[in-house]
Amino acid sequence: MLAETLAAIRPADQRALAEARAHQDRLTKPRGSLGALEDVAIRLAGAAGACPPPMPSPAALAIFAADHGVHARGVSPWPQEVTVQMVANFLSGGAVANAFAAQAGVPVTVVDVGVAADLPDAPGLVKRKIAYGTADLSRGPAMTVDQAVRALEAGIVVARGLVAEGARCLIAGDMGIANTTASAALVSVFTGKDPAEVTGRGTGIDDDTHKRKVAVVREALHVNGLSHDEPQPAGSSPSEALRALAAVGGFEHAAIAGFILCGAAARVPVILDGVIAGAGALAAAALDPATTDHCVAGHRSAEPGHAATLDHLRLRPLIDLEMRLGEGTGALLAHPMVCAAVRMMHDVATFDAAGVTEKPV
Amino acid sequence: MLAETLAAIRPADQRALAEARAHQDRLTKPRGSLGALEDVAIRLAGAAGACPPPMPSPAALAIFAADHGVHARGVSPWPQEVTVQMVANFLSGGAVANAFAAQAGVPVTVVDVGVAADLPDAPGLVKRKIAYGTADLSRGPAMTVDQAVRALEAGIVVARGLVAEGARCLIAGDMGIANTTASAALVSVFTGKDPAEVTGRGTGIDDDTHKRKVAVVREALHVNGLSHDEPQPAGSSPSEALRALAAVGGFEHAAIAGFILCGAAARVPVILDGVIAGAGALAAAALDPATTDHCVAGHRSAEPGHAATLDHLRLRPLIDLEMRLGEGTGALLAHPMVCAAVRMMHDVATFDAAGVTEKPV
Repeated sequence: MLAETLAAIRPADQRALAEARAHQDRLTKPRGSLGALEDVAIRLAGAAGACPPPMPSPAALAIFAADHGVHARGVSPWPQEVTVQMVANFLSGGAVANAFAAQAGVPVTVVDVGVAADLPDAPGLVKRKIAYGTADLSRGPAMTVDQAVRALEAGIVVARGLVAEGARCLIAGDMGIANTTASAALVSVFTGKDPAEVTGRGTGIDDDTHKRKVAVVREALHVNGLSHDEPQPAGSSPSEALRALAAVGGFEHAAIAGFILCGAAARVPVILDGVIAGAGALAAAALDPATTDHCVAGHRSAEPGHAATLDHLRLRPLIDLEMRLGEGTGALLAHPMVCAAVRMMHDVATFDAAGVTEKPV
Repeated sequence: MLAETLAAIRPADQRALAEARAHQDRLTKPRGSLGALEDVAIRLAGAAGACPPPMPSPAALAIFAADHGVHARGVSPWPQEVTVQMVANFLSGGAVANAFAAQAGVPVTVVDVGVAADLPDAPGLVKRKIAYGTADLSRGPAMTVDQAVRALEAGIVVARGLVAEGARCLIAGDMGIANTTASAALVSVFTGKDPAEVTGRGTGIDDDTHKRKVAVVREALHVNGLSHDEPQPAGSSPSEALRALAAVGGFEHAAIAGFILCGAAARVPVILDGVIAGAGALAAAALDPATTDHCVAGHRSAEPGHAATLDHLRLRPLIDLEMRLGEGTGALLAHPMVCAAVRMMHDVATFDAAGVTEKPV
């Protein structure tokens, strides 16, 4: 299923990109006056292979939840059971992601890909548990390669289902106590930045914990034979990328990577959230760089690893408000902006049609 | 009517602000993890005097259109008749503001406060013309003080009507060829910045035109006895503020100032757009500083005067994508984010209610 998905991914269509750029310049507004929002509309045309691109609506949010063996190293002040508690909160509609999703008219699916407890059945919960949390990435591989592939495929299956139900835009959220530690390790491996540069304070940790977290990320790379200062070994081949993802990622990172790959394969745009989704996108891009053509960066989080991620992927975030919650919240806020960008391509009159005098060039 | 509106404006309610801050910290998310968006929710509680604040929905957009005598000085490459043409475009639904408003579910009203031509009646057009464009602000006052008051009151009347019809959030847009020149003059006077620092390229001008535009703004201050390097004479008293607005403003700036004042008086939040709305907000704040407590900065435009404006008003923009179109487009994009911030205060569960373990402090 992974191979089939990878085989279906196409880069941006150059002709649609050119058409979209030309169309932008005919619309009744000064050229370039919508700044970076024009690029969103143009990129989505390239991704869809059509100008104007289809409206990225309705959207669907999948929150991938999992636990992390590295939690035992004291990298987070929150107890691990908060993952389970927050899954229950998502399912009863009480989390910020639910409020933002309701505001944007986006349905929420919660996917257990590796929570360290058995979850009762509930409407809106999809059970695709690979294991009860990953192994401790600072002592060895967090997942086997087989587990990583199964998590990727769980993300693919969920995305396929949402697209089959009519979703025309995909948003991946995450929940997993300690998952910024795995994210930092992934970001370091895939961007080549030192762990100290890309390891942040997650949900809020003190200086001592932060120091320990950086050391843990460094150990994780070392013990797994990964390096951030080689010429990007992780991106050099799909099998190397898969090995890196398995070694230092989480089940939710792998599932999000699969979710993004499936969006790209189906030409359904994916709005990325913060550093966890970003780390998933780095893994997806390492498996096939064309994937990124189908992604929009919803926001830039306060996590330093996220800035490095977006730079590496060459994506400009739509929102930059020092948010660091995850759950898909930043991407949900950006969804109406992405819709507005595309709607402009559909609805706005050209200078000719509206009888508006164009500025002399 | 202006005096009555000014008399009704109250600053943010300190008790509601404190309640909102405390409530934020009980919600099931790490403290501060929504960054600047938390401040929006808190500020709106203070503005409304209630926690949670009412949902800022439905919103209403009024686009104030007017012409400018200073256009004769060659400060814009666009012919003046584009103002009329764009009014027609708004009324037929073909402009970017229409597309963004449709996306956000916001109705559009166009207000002629000083277009240099007679406009045919049309659904959605409100006629409140003060004159056929302002006088050339670089040769003397752009408006008489009486005209400025009438334009302010036009803005108040429009805002009152929209609130009476049910609007719970106000957005002011603008249309007026050459209005970034008047904006730069207003920004210089009200923020104390040199014209060279706050005069931008508007809809796109070459170096020579930009040089001329800066010189024209400088002349405008000089000929009207205004200065940017005195200790803010324009803000020192309402009558001085009114004189400055009349001397170098436009009818749409004055109307937008009135629109904002009325929103503040009615405790209905106003989402500010770019540098033209920002210049109007500076004038409104000079008339009563408490006005700003009721404003949210929708975005920061590419115009240098807009950054100076937001700094002066101490407002952090929600969006920063180098947009520079006006029409209310930046504010329209921000409206769903403002709604999401408030909805969080209504819908998100507390740690206690959701049974989620709080991080040890």
